[in-house]
Amino acid sequence: MSIRCTVWGENIHERENPVVASIYPDGLHTTIAQALSEDSGIVPRTVTLQDPAQGCSPDILAETDVLVWWGHKAHGAVSDRAVENVTKRVWAGMGLIVLHSGHFSKVFKALMGAPCSLKWREAGERERIWAVNPSHPIAAGLPGCFELEHEEMYGEPFAIPEPLETVFISWFQGGEVFRSGVTYQRGAGRIFYFRPGHETYPTYHDGNVHRVLRNAVRWAAPVGAPRENICDAPNVPVHEALEPIEARGPSLHGPGSAGYR
Amino acid sequence: MSIRCTVWGENIHERENPVVASIYPDGLHTTIAQALSEDSGIVPRTVTLQDPAQGCSPDILAETDVLVWWGHKAHGAVSDRAVENVTKRVWAGMGLIVLHSGHFSKVFKALMGAPCSLKWREAGERERIWAVNPSHPIAAGLPGCFELEHEEMYGEPFAIPEPLETVFISWFQGGEVFRSGVTYQRGAGRIFYFRPGHETYPTYHDGNVHRVLRNAVRWAAPVGAPRENICDAPNVPVHEALEPIEARGPSLHGPGSAGYR
Amino acid sequence: MSIRCTVWGENIHERENPVVASIYPDGLHTTIAQALSEDSGIVPRTVTLQDPAQGCSPDILAETDVLVWWGHKAHGAVSDRAVENVTKRVWAGMGLIVLHSGHFSKVFKALMGAPCSLKWREAGERERIWAVNPSHPIAAGLPGCFELEHEEMYGEPFAIPEPLETVFISWFQGGEVFRSGVTYQRGAGRIFYFRPGHETYPTYHDGNVHRVLRNAVRWAAPVGAPRENICDAPNVPVHEALEPIEARGPSLHGPGSAGYR
Amino acid sequence: MSIRCTVWGENIHERENPVVASIYPDGLHTTIAQALSEDSGIVPRTVTLQDPAQGCSPDILAETDVLVWWGHKAHGAVSDRAVENVTKRVWAGMGLIVLHSGHFSKVFKALMGAPCSLKWREAGERERIWAVNPSHPIAAGLPGCFELEHEEMYGEPFAIPEPLETVFISWFQGGEVFRSGVTYQRGAGRIFYFRPGHETYPTYHDGNVHRVLRNAVRWAAPVGAPRENICDAPNVPVHEALEPIEARGPSLHGPGSAGYR
Repeated sequence: MSIRCTVWGENIHERENPVVASIYPDGLHTTIAQALSEDSGIVPRTVTLQDPAQGCSPDILAETDVLVWWGHKAHGAVSDRAVENVTKRVWAGMGLIVLHSGHFSKVFKALMGAPCSLKWREAGERERIWAVNPSHPIAAGLPGCFELEHEEMYGEPFAIPEPLETVFISWFQGGEVFRSGVTYQRGAGRIFYFRPGHETYPTYHDGNVHRVLRNAVRWAAPVGAPRENICDAPNVPVHEALEPIEARGPSLHGPGSAGYR
Repeated sequence: MSIRCTVWGENIHERENPVVASIYPDGLHTTIAQALSEDSGIVPRTVTLQDPAQGCSPDILAETDVLVWWGHKAHGAVSDRAVENVTKRVWAGMGLIVLHSGHFSKVFKALMGAPCSLKWREAGERERIWAVNPSHPIAAGLPGCFELEHEEMYGEPFAIPEPLETVFISWFQGGEVFRSGVTYQRGAGRIFYFRPGHETYPTYHDGNVHRVLRNAVRWAAPVGAPRENICDAPNVPVHEALEPIEARGPSLHGPGSAGYR
Repeated sequence: MSIRCTVWGENIHERENPVVASIYPDGLHTTIAQALSEDSGIVPRTVTLQDPAQGCSPDILAETDVLVWWGHKAHGAVSDRAVENVTKRVWAGMGLIVLHSGHFSKVFKALMGAPCSLKWREAGERERIWAVNPSHPIAAGLPGCFELEHEEMYGEPFAIPEPLETVFISWFQGGEVFRSGVTYQRGAGRIFYFRPGHETYPTYHDGNVHRVLRNAVRWAAPVGAPRENICDAPNVPVHEALEPIEARGPSLHGPGSAGYR
Repeated sequence: MSIRCTVWGENIHERENPVVASIYPDGLHTTIAQALSEDSGIVPRTVTLQDPAQGCSPDILAETDVLVWWGHKAHGAVSDRAVENVTKRVWAGMGLIVLHSGHFSKVFKALMGAPCSLKWREAGERERIWAVNPSHPIAAGLPGCFELEHEEMYGEPFAIPEPLETVFISWFQGGEVFRSGVTYQRGAGRIFYFRPGHETYPTYHDGNVHRVLRNAVRWAAPVGAPRENICDAPNVPVHEALEPIEARGPSLHGPGSAGYR
């Protein structure tokens, strides 16, 4: 079974900024998708903010097992509709990989329920990424640590919920640390945030980064069928209770009521 | 130091439904506040949906260490402004206790980033609440389990994020189970969800429930000063780096840039 | 790649007790192994307490990807050597599935670092197992809940560490609840505890139980090569530091010291 | 209510090594106890490995709310009896603060169920400790980060169970990172591991370290009475079931059986 992976790219810097364009002439999303395609079990495609429905139509998402998200400058331009579509699909089981500046994307913040803020510095400094849980599937095949000679610094405190698992922690040349790889589950969907990937550096041409991305897509792929009705709150009729009971005392809702939302 | 606790009540059922009015003639919020006031270290006050700013003005929240939330019928009527005010205050450190049908409140869903859905049945059946972590501060002074003879059933799967700690699990007469007491942190704020409290039953007159509420308020109270700027993402200047570094390579942001959101 | 699974059976009740012998004439371990073999990707074999090295020799464990453990009467007879062999292998990456009364096995207690105590009652009562995280790989293909008409009751508080994930919670006819399926990681190894399986009932002939066991073995299988040296604490020489540093100040250990244990 | 805190010191290096003796002339345990005594709510006392029962008699532990543990060279000399005494007391509710090289103490390894291994280098390099959860009670009153100019390096991977909460992460001059402050619960007892404290450096004379120690003792103090019987597994008689049931089917244990361990 192949994993259908949609790489969502904001696709602005690479068209407007010559430095970014020189590193990612076809867009960051394309480079990321190419790296994923090296795993024959992953079938990537790309969408961008400029696509119809901002690349987040229900149809596209329904055919997506794992969504990879790279955005930065246009977080505010992503529509509430797009955010709702993505959020609901994650809840139904779609995996989500959020990259770098996506920590401040509407999608990630909505799923975390947290500020997701951090410190940052754009100095092209060295980042060293340590696998603190080297046995985690997302760290498979990686060395104990690897370096990115030029990266933007992200520093703690990173205002995220306590992760389910912390997989990577970064060391920065200028003196900071950062939880660079963290996992969550929201509804039926698995979520992985991965820190590196500033657009003015060739991070998505790095082999170790490629491996993380492929591992993460495999890890986040849903196991069973989508839980399309995960937002429902079914009223279980008294006569269908698993143990025989009789209704007692006063009640507010009539039989078959849908409840309040 | 006393804990300033604001009890938010939707205050609809108790005015419209004679059964609810007979159990909570002054409103659920008032009964809850009275239970809290039995702890001399807690100073409760009440606000309702009908108050100015729906009881969620920045001024009120700024004077609140812990907010207790009971809502049901009018989840949809709570304004986005009110939700944003509460959410930001939780992130800054205000504790939040969400009760019963508040699982579907906008406030709770926004902070969980999850569907928060469940099964339910209004049959006045027996609920037995087990302390699965009896050493947790929120379970202090409670028996190993306690019963509510008449309650609404909430059944798993409860579509919440994996809790930081699971404190209580409920057994229901009709055959279901439910994670009835769960903890989270979002930003600087501590959050506790507590299941019991259907409005047609005298749950908030129960001594064990009172104890849970008082324990929870104490547990959720912030330790230090509010982190008013927790949503900021400060740009750390290169020359202020904790280790001496020099900017290298291309950059996108100019010095002192505020970054994108 | 097939998963090499070793099912460890205490193999006492089924030889000494006619009721158990009638349900599991070839031993519980054999019935469990047969259930696992229905997944063509799992290659099970069985060992017992009566085998050389109590079935826990380094050779056997080195050829084991996932170990399934069923013990009850003879917890105390399991040698410290066997416990150490299993523990070290889990740390190196071997998965471990601990069943039912194995909550009090030396192996499980050593890996949990906790009392692992609980309440119990042997009354052949009904147990209903709810998938509280139905999207977890271990719950794949299961109904929302399933029943075992006759089981021993295990009741909370279950004195285990807060689980990484709670997958199943049980409802018991007599009024108790229990966290029936919980996950952990210790060293590189994944651990799953699954509650049902009292020897006087046909639990391991149940199709839903079979599915949980197969799912759990797949979930617990290690991803990469064993981390044979995970207990080592290497002294990183100063001249091999990833960033250039010079030794400063006094030191206790000489160059190349192995450190204290 | 004051917190009775016992500081356990190995008390070897400070008597044998002139450098350590010059920094901690009265022993590391004494310096630590003095730092704790600055909080009037904490009543510290010291014990050492050289004391009767190695300072871990049941009597001493019964009068201890929180135990602080510093050991290094003589991990192997700590008796199994002492380890068992401490472990059982933690399970009953005693808090435990494990310092620095105590990661390899028998006590910590027994409670973690994990290798607790790490990388290390003794080069007197700079450590910078970041509060990644600055709202946690253990981080109260601290700056966002603080430095220790000379420390031993501990590097990831730190083979511990996924923490309940990660409070601090360290940056090291030589390029490594480390989860320096992590919380757990085992039985009723709260556990905090804190990394800094190599004996050849004046770490326990540092004001920020003092604050962490005092915060941690307050955080780890038990809330209620000790759960002396937490290791028991009571057999709940059928006629005392909370819901009326009748025993059905075969059984292995006679009425009132104590069960197997």
